[in-house]
Amino acid sequence: MSDGAVTERMLLTGIGELVTNEPAPDREGGPLGIVRDAAVLVEDGRIAWVGRGTHASEHLARRDEREDRREGDEHRTLWDADVEVVDVGGRAVIPGFVDSHTHLVFGGDRAEEFAARMAGRRYEAGGIRSTVAATRAASDDELRARLAAFVAELHDQGTTTFEVKSGYGLSVADEERLVRLAGEVTDEVTFLGAHVVPAEYADAPDAYVELVVGEMLAACAPHARWIDAFCERGAFTPEQSRRVLDAGAALGLGIRVHGNQLGEGDGVRLAVELGAASVDHCTYLSEADVAALAASDTVATLLPGVEFSTRQPYPDARRLIDAGVTVALASDCNPGSSFTSSMPFCIAVAVRDMGMTPAETVWASTAGGAAALRRTDVGAIRPGARADLVLLDAPSHVHLAYRPGVPLVARVWKDGALITER
Amino acid sequence: MSDGAVTERMLLTGIGELVTNEPAPDREGGPLGIVRDAAVLVEDGRIAWVGRGTHASEHLARRDEREDRREGDEHRTLWDADVEVVDVGGRAVIPGFVDSHTHLVFGGDRAEEFAARMAGRRYEAGGIRSTVAATRAASDDELRARLAAFVAELHDQGTTTFEVKSGYGLSVADEERLVRLAGEVTDEVTFLGAHVVPAEYADAPDAYVELVVGEMLAACAPHARWIDAFCERGAFTPEQSRRVLDAGAALGLGIRVHGNQLGEGDGVRLAVELGAASVDHCTYLSEADVAALAASDTVATLLPGVEFSTRQPYPDARRLIDAGVTVALASDCNPGSSFTSSMPFCIAVAVRDMGMTPAETVWASTAGGAAALRRTDVGAIRPGARADLVLLDAPSHVHLAYRPGVPLVARVWKDGALITER
Repeated sequence: MSDGAVTERMLLTGIGELVTNEPAPDREGGPLGIVRDAAVLVEDGRIAWVGRGTHASEHLARRDEREDRREGDEHRTLWDADVEVVDVGGRAVIPGFVDSHTHLVFGGDRAEEFAARMAGRRYEAGGIRSTVAATRAASDDELRARLAAFVAELHDQGTTTFEVKSGYGLSVADEERLVRLAGEVTDEVTFLGAHVVPAEYADAPDAYVELVVGEMLAACAPHARWIDAFCERGAFTPEQSRRVLDAGAALGLGIRVHGNQLGEGDGVRLAVELGAASVDHCTYLSEADVAALAASDTVATLLPGVEFSTRQPYPDARRLIDAGVTVALASDCNPGSSFTSSMPFCIAVAVRDMGMTPAETVWASTAGGAAALRRTDVGAIRPGARADLVLLDAPSHVHLAYRPGVPLVARVWKDGALITER
Repeated sequence: MSDGAVTERMLLTGIGELVTNEPAPDREGGPLGIVRDAAVLVEDGRIAWVGRGTHASEHLARRDEREDRREGDEHRTLWDADVEVVDVGGRAVIPGFVDSHTHLVFGGDRAEEFAARMAGRRYEAGGIRSTVAATRAASDDELRARLAAFVAELHDQGTTTFEVKSGYGLSVADEERLVRLAGEVTDEVTFLGAHVVPAEYADAPDAYVELVVGEMLAACAPHARWIDAFCERGAFTPEQSRRVLDAGAALGLGIRVHGNQLGEGDGVRLAVELGAASVDHCTYLSEADVAALAASDTVATLLPGVEFSTRQPYPDARRLIDAGVTVALASDCNPGSSFTSSMPFCIAVAVRDMGMTPAETVWASTAGGAAALRRTDVGAIRPGARADLVLLDAPSHVHLAYRPGVPLVARVWKDGALITER
């Protein structure tokens, strides 16, 4: 580092429990790689050093010596500038949540449909289409304002990386608009033209698929990193889904699949065959599906908010984990089937109803989400990773499930910058 | 009002949906008594006026006229002083939550026990006793600091009235200490010496009951409003429970009962017979229990956090409501079986898993809690009631269940004073 350069440095100390997601022989908690009485040094938005707090003090002491001696030292620059020291008083720090599945660009809400469903009145299909109508009617600025509010909500709840899908436009112009607006708030944009067949193509679903793989994909691909398709009875057939996913992959998009939400089907098989980064929902799985997932590097992303808000049976995370499948948790935040944006809530439900331990849920909502997005720069606290950190008002990650519903996120740093403080 | 007197007045306007819990022919939502485009005038910590926002403007206009004319007018003082006008931009306002069942004075936590239980390891009984040991070991100031943190947490989540029980002391000195400390933060203090039989009386439970109704009750009654007993297999028999409750009532304490949590039993029957304000848990009920409750003015207080955190079956709220029983929801916040302090969380779970509608849960966690504490000054937004108000970051009370886990509480006023703002 040359003289005069300004380096932003922060030392978080007094961390009672640090979840690194970097297992090591001298760390606890298996995959969580827990360090007790820890410290983390952040430098220019990245993790620079992780260790025991006592060692941090030694480093600081050595730095003072070095400043006197001004000798060459490979670690010299580590302590060369002023360091902002933040003592968190024994509380827990975990990686920022990685929410790999949301649908946050939409107009309107469906509170009345939800209340009617919860009062036992018959569920009227076509809910997605009502959001499509409201979304098409909304201006760019209305959608932007809505999206900004959701981003603030995600940050407040500890989510520092999130994916956003299109899928409520379902016309060339509207889908292009949604991926473009999503791209203003995240790099993880997914083109989901194949969400449902819009009302105007109800009698000609194959013509809609032609539109998706043709003009719509051409308009959306430049704004997207991922292609996705809802491979489910009532949405798209395996053949239609494959057509869409292949077309996206041919333009360089990574593959994600919605599948096996409402019954057993071909979503998982297709996802594994195409090398998808993730197949999402996985509520109904055959033995062959579980075996295929276990033998692949496709992540099974479970979305407990959906089953919670639709009173459906939960996916069996235990069965997947025991078979060796990589499991992620995500919110699926959307106005129809899961309007939660809260990863802590998903964690609590996954522990209560999906057979996961608190440790497994915390891994799945951080490192698991990163795997589902094929990201190595987030989801773990290790040197070189982005400094995306969540301070909990609690001594342990266990409290996220032990204290359900309680807002425990005290502070959030993204790329080293404090973005939430309560 | 005499000249020169300072009156604190606030007009909340722009309320898109106001839940009053005061039904009327011109209001929506049945028992919720919803007013759209509403305004609320707060005066000296109490509700002074509730109505349509347009009518509030008329009032203000008339006030200006009156100021010119300075004539006698029965409403004159209403607008005589400056009014702070707060426009909430179309969002929903509901009464502050009334949490009628908590155990917030304790030492330690039981996160490890929780994690072990969720990992499927065998549950070791005696959990309450481990909290008793930690509580006895804690100083008054440690317990006070803990309690203050919980009170802040309750306020942040919209709870403006809450009950606190003793029950982790189980000696004369420690129970006296717990009710005394609880009394520093709430008027709703419950003496629960009959929580469990402490280890030192394990072989002589009747001797412990003698202590509870004798020296312990004498020491605690001056600090308490309520007496409670845990009438359940493994805790206290119906005869022991009756003995404790009768003794408390003889000293002027109101009666509450823990019952029917782990199986059918005599808790509900006893509660109804003794005219208890509430019987809490009610997870396992016979037809006779439901009929007895329906014919009584004893409230059935359901505690969804307990079933959530112990993976037990939920109580059937639908059956109770359909039978005409008054139902309340409360958190049961305690370190063993339900460490949530979040009424919004309880609402979401009660909708998902207990057959309640969103409207029923909002009523049960406000007016229902007030009924369980036999309070008429809280739980509703009507002239004369305490100005305990919650502003939601949402257009409707439905969102509390529709957006589970999302912290929707934007502002909270207690006795007219702003105590939480996000």
